Amino acid sequence: MPFAYAELEDRYRRVALLGESIGMLSWDQSVMMPEGGAAARSDQIAALAVIRHSMMTDPAMPDLLDGAEAEGGLDEWQLANLREMRRDWVHAAAVPSDLVEAMSKASNACETVWRSARSNADFAAVLPTLTEVLNLTRRVGEAKAEALGCGMYDALLDTFEPDGRCATIDPIFDSYAEFLPGFLDDVMARQASKPAPALPPGPFPVETQRMLVRRMAETVGLEFSTARLDESLHPFSGGIPEDSRITTRYDESDFTLAMMGVLHETGHAMYERARPAAWRRQPVGEARGMTVHESQSLLVEMQVCRSQGFIGWAAEIMRNAFQGSGDSWNLENLYRLATQVSRGFIRVDADEVTYPAHVILRYRLERAMLAGDLALADLPSAWNDGLQKLLGVTPPDDRLGCLQDIHWYDGAWGYFPTYTLGAMAAAQIYAAARDADAKIPGGITQGDFRPLMTWLGENVHGKGSLLSTNDLIESATGRPFDDTAFRDHLHTRYLEN
Amino acid sequence: MPFAYAELEDRYRRVALLGESIGMLSWDQSVMMPEGGAAARSDQIAALAVIRHSMMTDPAMPDLLDGAEAEGGLDEWQLANLREMRRDWVHAAAVPSDLVEAMSKASNACETVWRSARSNADFAAVLPTLTEVLNLTRRVGEAKAEALGCGMYDALLDTFEPDGRCATIDPIFDSYAEFLPGFLDDVMARQASKPAPALPPGPFPVETQRMLVRRMAETVGLEFSTARLDESLHPFSGGIPEDSRITTRYDESDFTLAMMGVLHETGHAMYERARPAAWRRQPVGEARGMTVHESQSLLVEMQVCRSQGFIGWAAEIMRNAFQGSGDSWNLENLYRLATQVSRGFIRVDADEVTYPAHVILRYRLERAMLAGDLALADLPSAWNDGLQKLLGVTPPDDRLGCLQDIHWYDGAWGYFPTYTLGAMAAAQIYAAARDADAKIPGGITQGDFRPLMTWLGENVHGKGSLLSTNDLIESATGRPFDDTAFRDHLHTRYLEN
Repeated sequence: MPFAYAELEDRYRRVALLGESIGMLSWDQSVMMPEGGAAARSDQIAALAVIRHSMMTDPAMPDLLDGAEAEGGLDEWQLANLREMRRDWVHAAAVPSDLVEAMSKASNACETVWRSARSNADFAAVLPTLTEVLNLTRRVGEAKAEALGCGMYDALLDTFEPDGRCATIDPIFDSYAEFLPGFLDDVMARQASKPAPALPPGPFPVETQRMLVRRMAETVGLEFSTARLDESLHPFSGGIPEDSRITTRYDESDFTLAMMGVLHETGHAMYERARPAAWRRQPVGEARGMTVHESQSLLVEMQVCRSQGFIGWAAEIMRNAFQGSGDSWNLENLYRLATQVSRGFIRVDADEVTYPAHVILRYRLERAMLAGDLALADLPSAWNDGLQKLLGVTPPDDRLGCLQDIHWYDGAWGYFPTYTLGAMAAAQIYAAARDADAKIPGGITQGDFRPLMTWLGENVHGKGSLLSTNDLIESATGRPFDDTAFRDHLHTRYLEN
Repeated sequence: MPFAYAELEDRYRRVALLGESIGMLSWDQSVMMPEGGAAARSDQIAALAVIRHSMMTDPAMPDLLDGAEAEGGLDEWQLANLREMRRDWVHAAAVPSDLVEAMSKASNACETVWRSARSNADFAAVLPTLTEVLNLTRRVGEAKAEALGCGMYDALLDTFEPDGRCATIDPIFDSYAEFLPGFLDDVMARQASKPAPALPPGPFPVETQRMLVRRMAETVGLEFSTARLDESLHPFSGGIPEDSRITTRYDESDFTLAMMGVLHETGHAMYERARPAAWRRQPVGEARGMTVHESQSLLVEMQVCRSQGFIGWAAEIMRNAFQGSGDSWNLENLYRLATQVSRGFIRVDADEVTYPAHVILRYRLERAMLAGDLALADLPSAWNDGLQKLLGVTPPDDRLGCLQDIHWYDGAWGYFPTYTLGAMAAAQIYAAARDADAKIPGGITQGDFRPLMTWLGENVHGKGSLLSTNDLIESATGRPFDDTAFRDHLHTRYLEN
């Protein structure tokens, strides 16, 4: 193996191990840590992050990257690995370490203020620290924009979605924003013409829910000899391929929240678990980006597990778990429940029809704030106006409005679009999977996910970061990525079935 | 603050943060991690250990240490901190980093094999990996011996017990080995003359035990806003002062095992929590060593919580917890139960009279194995012969013999003596505490540990590593450390009361 390239693989392996360690400390912080440990944990994670950043920006790195490109002799995967190494290095080296530290401290401080500001629906309380986060985010974005040769928003987006650009997103989002009001009216009218879905009567004991959702995760393919399922305030999927750590929260009055949440996080975990093992701890072996990641959670949750086929199989298991009886446990009711559409305020509770509106709102607002076209103080009214235009509803307070999501307060500007790009990719990928192998939709109706996961493993998971997001989706589905499949899916599910 | 010294404080702070992170990953490994995560976790911990080692052995360190000693201007604590910095540096710099990594991987691998080998009582299965651990341990010991100017075993012992030396331990252990057979005969004869202690009838539901032992830990002084209590195969005390992580295991037929175990680990945790806060993440702020650490767990468990005074207070709480009735819940029976002596096979189940025999056996055997005087293949028979001589019993298989403890398989050679040195220090320190303040034994009879913990905080915990082990014990108790108080304690508790 060429010298410079081999040295890079060794260095990136150590960087990845630090990343895994940071991930573990974060998991513990969210799931296990007593409150008193917060300040010390923040110091521990910051120390590891500083070490990782200094490894990435070691003075020898530019010569090693240039040297590896010059020495040649690399195969397809190694070349892609080298490309991804340079991408990671450009992102790391673009931002001076004092700015990294300032950003980390400011977003930590802002997140803490946000938690109480949100409880009190008091946006003014978080405005000063949010202003600092925005100013620092601009500086990070400008530094990365210069390094990447793109616009500031594109540079921030690139952190989460490599090669993601506004020029691609704008037409897709604008078109959906135009399509949605009429479509939503049709969906709501059709929904009103059918019986209203009824939540089966609870309460649903947490211990029973825990057994049910574990079984569901196992059905998708998670094995608990290499995974854990715990509780946290904000459900997430973490860990490593050999040790998945997914979380959920339980509501004794509605078991479907935990069940659909776990299916979603299991979709993320299945992607992580099937990344190419030969490229473990190398950049090319990582997940492609947040669009593809979200496509895998939404493929499992939205495309598959809210389908009639899956609900038809799962209905009896759910009913048996809670020893339920009565009409509300019928397939028809459970399916209507799983595909209910409503004009709501909260993104994380939204159905798949209205979810893109929540994302488009945030995407437009964060671009305006970054560009200086929207003053932070005017965010609450701009939020409320925007939601009214997109969904026809106005939140009664900022807790249900611009304070609901952690992202801006935690410094994750440029993240939101990936949710909806992921939903669109999920539809396109699942349509291709069904076309490729009839055993895939057939298996789902029997609770057999193996044909689907085999296909996803070969066409998506196992590719790691070999291809760009667009090339990966095109290679898996046979055509360029767009929103056609998503619109077709919504039309079929909400106006035909 | 002088320049070189200030730079050292900054570096050791980062070293400490890495140590805390490693501790957290290890806690998760023992308590939470699914089995499939073992190999990856081992890689993560090894990567952090290598980084820590390279920080400690940075080429600038010798000049910084010399410079800080030369520039002067340090107060008593800073001088002690500098002394401990040099001690840590000598230990780290003595061992080349490839050996550190090899040792970490080998002991991780061996520990994994040991777990199944122990279940199957199959010593041969672990022999190859244990051989590698021993060979690497010898290389570590030889390297440290040269740096410290002492013998190989002393050098390994020094890792756990700074300044601990065989020359001091040998006379104490030899004398105890000589004293024990006759004393044990007397204790057993006296015990036989009284009613046999009866375990209160169970079963004792785990959930009830969990509440009881949490209350007991809180009684000693643990606060669960800054602590966790979980289950693990091998109970231990980990975490940091602001986030203690103690573990136990529950046996539904005998609640006293978990209760005494938790009291023991709480003693460790109370020491960690009361280390000098002004010296957090500096070497002088760390616990003094494993002898003093074990003295604090044994002071709580053996000296205090198996005393008539404590049992008298706790008896009613135990009975109420399990809604017990009958004679077995009487103070007299519960005290006899807590102080029962027997010739057993298992160190962790041993009473305080026979416990030193288990340690002396291991101390002698590990010295012989390190010196090459005992081949690893002959360990099982040497173990059985040794235990027969010291306690008059022979284990039926190696699960109850040389496979019972993790230490050798995990690479912790030279650790065992600190248990018995700790037991002796506990007796001497608690005798001094009782003499110093009558409210200390008085408080115990009411479940009030505050006078004791205040005295320990001032005289032991809060001193960190300011003094050597011997000086710390002498300053706390007014006389040099020896085994007089321990022998007096055993005589009083087992032949008089």
